[in-house]
Amino acid sequence: MGYLTKLAAEVGALLTKRGWTLATAESCTGGLIGHHLTNVPGSSTYFVGGVVAYANRVKEEILGVPRELLLTHGAVSGEVALAMAQGVQRLLDTDIGLAVTGIAGPSGGTPEKPVGTIFIAISSPSGDEVRRLLSTSDREGNKRFSAEAALRLLEENLRG
Amino acid sequence: MGYLTKLAAEVGALLTKRGWTLATAESCTGGLIGHHLTNVPGSSTYFVGGVVAYANRVKEEILGVPRELLLTHGAVSGEVALAMAQGVQRLLDTDIGLAVTGIAGPSGGTPEKPVGTIFIAISSPSGDEVRRLLSTSDREGNKRFSAEAALRLLEENLRG
Repeated sequence: MGYLTKLAAEVGALLTKRGWTLATAESCTGGLIGHHLTNVPGSSTYFVGGVVAYANRVKEEILGVPRELLLTHGAVSGEVALAMAQGVQRLLDTDIGLAVTGIAGPSGGTPEKPVGTIFIAISSPSGDEVRRLLSTSDREGNKRFSAEAALRLLEENLRG
Repeated sequence: MGYLTKLAAEVGALLTKRGWTLATAESCTGGLIGHHLTNVPGSSTYFVGGVVAYANRVKEEILGVPRELLLTHGAVSGEVALAMAQGVQRLLDTDIGLAVTGIAGPSGGTPEKPVGTIFIAISSPSGDEVRRLLSTSDREGNKRFSAEAALRLLEENLRG
């Protein structure tokens, strides 16, 4: 069992203890968070599912991210990350929504938001939180960094 | 770049050649197919997104799988796999819908559908297809087997 799956198992134990359900909204990670969550036997008791919102129109049409936020702040922003988390929480009717949006690279970076810029967000009964992070790896490394950061944010929220 | 990501890159080249877009509906794989698809730089030109339909209510409420199919055939069935593929194709308005549902284990098996029973389905302009397969690995191996089988089905559909 790899490191991220172990982290997912720890998070799963905390979710079980709270009796809370979880949904994910993944952009740059493309499903990697859901993959590790579902590597854990019994994860179906707390992990309801998720949306891989790769295209902006999925963020808007399925998750209900306001177009204004996408236009004003960009798809890779804290505002959109939080709206994705709240959107999937509402769509799948779960206690917690967890979201990631970022620039995995190798292209897509800008001076203000270079490759590796990641926003993670959680909407939870314990409170909402958004974090901006910078990963300096390659595409696969940046995805892995993002998934770990999201699971860590969830873990802290559940322990807090 | 791992084996499944190489396969995803081959599939991506075929999608690009056809000019077709793709959406995924994943149950037992939990996001693993989307993860490998998005490991490929430039995949956003053809991969629109997906739904991780882990709970049955996500299959029904989000993907529009008829409750009757779930009750009659079970969530792990060819009928539900095809309805998931068609459902995500419709929801995300893509050319192709690709779906997987199965029993990753270690629990959940029955005499008729033992652990490792997988159904994969594609809904595509080239035609619809459903396959039943049996994987004999552990949970993570069964997920990997399922993701590879789905990508192979997509590859064959695009070459055919």
